Amino acid sequence: MAITVVGSVAYDSIETPAGRRERCLGGAATYFSLAASFFTDVRVIAVVGEDFGPAEQAVFDARQIDTRGIEHTAGKSFFWAGSYMESLNEAKTEITDLNVFATFNPQIPDAYRDSDFLFLANIDPVLQRRVREQMPDVKLVAGDTMNYWINDHRPALLQMLKGLDILLINDTETRVLGGNTNMVLAANAVMALGPDTLVVKHGEYGATLFNGGNSNTFKVPALPLDEVVDPTGAGDSFAGGFFGYLASQPELTPGAFRRAMFYGSVMGSFAVQCFGTERLQELTRERIDARFNEFVALTHLD
Amino acid sequence: MAITVVGSVAYDSIETPAGRRERCLGGAATYFSLAASFFTDVRVIAVVGEDFGPAEQAVFDARQIDTRGIEHTAGKSFFWAGSYMESLNEAKTEITDLNVFATFNPQIPDAYRDSDFLFLANIDPVLQRRVREQMPDVKLVAGDTMNYWINDHRPALLQMLKGLDILLINDTETRVLGGNTNMVLAANAVMALGPDTLVVKHGEYGATLFNGGNSNTFKVPALPLDEVVDPTGAGDSFAGGFFGYLASQPELTPGAFRRAMFYGSVMGSFAVQCFGTERLQELTRERIDARFNEFVALTHLD
Repeated sequence: MAITVVGSVAYDSIETPAGRRERCLGGAATYFSLAASFFTDVRVIAVVGEDFGPAEQAVFDARQIDTRGIEHTAGKSFFWAGSYMESLNEAKTEITDLNVFATFNPQIPDAYRDSDFLFLANIDPVLQRRVREQMPDVKLVAGDTMNYWINDHRPALLQMLKGLDILLINDTETRVLGGNTNMVLAANAVMALGPDTLVVKHGEYGATLFNGGNSNTFKVPALPLDEVVDPTGAGDSFAGGFFGYLASQPELTPGAFRRAMFYGSVMGSFAVQCFGTERLQELTRERIDARFNEFVALTHLD
Repeated sequence: MAITVVGSVAYDSIETPAGRRERCLGGAATYFSLAASFFTDVRVIAVVGEDFGPAEQAVFDARQIDTRGIEHTAGKSFFWAGSYMESLNEAKTEITDLNVFATFNPQIPDAYRDSDFLFLANIDPVLQRRVREQMPDVKLVAGDTMNYWINDHRPALLQMLKGLDILLINDTETRVLGGNTNMVLAANAVMALGPDTLVVKHGEYGATLFNGGNSNTFKVPALPLDEVVDPTGAGDSFAGGFFGYLASQPELTPGAFRRAMFYGSVMGSFAVQCFGTERLQELTRERIDARFNEFVALTHLD
């Protein structure tokens, strides 16, 4: 079933111990879409400026991603510059230019309205909620957020959370939003705010699926890699693999959620192996499934 | 097959957000022995002072642990005081009184010499090596160390590592000893120093088994717990479960190593649920196996 995703399509300048790239195609909606496109149909809602050209469009087209919801407007696209020179676990943001994103008002094309799955990537929770309310009939809604919204826009965030079935955030965000240093208690507090299911991303330590009580908790590791080229977009790629796989399933069984966690970690592991979206662009479903099997070998007794 | 373990038997005063305990029985050899005793015969080499009385002896006796190698000497037992008030992930050491441990010269009882498995808990690598050399015929040798020995006693540590089959250390220790921030490269560098197998303990994120190349890498999570009462001894309990299970197996197959990783994490998860060794003392093999199955449910797709 089709996923509609709303979020950023951007340019990123990235410095890591492996090198530097200027203005590569990035943004949460880009990583999410590419990752999810290996599992199901994906439709993007975003805004870009005049710098978004045929080369960038071709990246989406090559994966048959529906971009009719990408609004082209005067000005420049969202731009982010960051460095991982101090730690691969956390980006040091050097520049954030919202540009055309500053006045973004998401419009949902009619052709997107029959989407059964909706992903609200990390943007202003007011916008996330606006999109959610315009798509009341979706079957499953997942979303992401970040500490900035948790700390400084909490009332809007709490409203938005009520419309989510699944929230995907990292360890620190979970502890801050849940108001507890213990991960289980923090996760329970977060789920009490709206989402039935919480996926906590632990970076190099993988991710945990919480959905009401330990009996349903599930863990997936990250793949041990001897080189992490660029961590940018790992979390969005995880979300794309996770939600894309769920959208491809006839039924949302506990087993489907478990496999979705594996596919999330698989897509995150690919994303970090090259700069920007390079690795995601060249993937095939066969390679993805081969790596899925590596994860099984990494975790299963037999 | 029997395990001989050399290490500390001590008293610990511990403060955590859950409360405070004065002078509870502790020490790496104590946690290790108790955890391993649920899987195989355990024989301890250590030194204690006059403060080690019948109550402490009874803890070992209740688990049929052979304590003929515990030397009783004039003076006080090793004493450690620490606090986890700032973080449950790292103890803040307040007092370390070596006491009788300062002049410890491990003696191996004749009755221990047919042990097939040897565990060198975290003590001076000179002593670890001395014990190792006195037991040349053991089948498998595992050991632990810490940053103090890695940083300030490296030559002695490097000598000791040559005599190990398995090293169990934490993330930071692996990165420092391996001289690399990338975990895979650090692990490979550590294994090049002697041990064929490396178990890296990640605290609340579980542990990774490395033994030569990604194809043999294996991950086990930690159990998500809604209360961690006292993290003291979690790593030693992990080692006891891991090595105790291995010693109980007719053959050291890859599958045996995988299950041993699970039993390690199982024993670590029990250890932190009460102060000191309280939880380990009251366990049964049935409870241990029930929790093993919880770990399977937490990690396996089907």
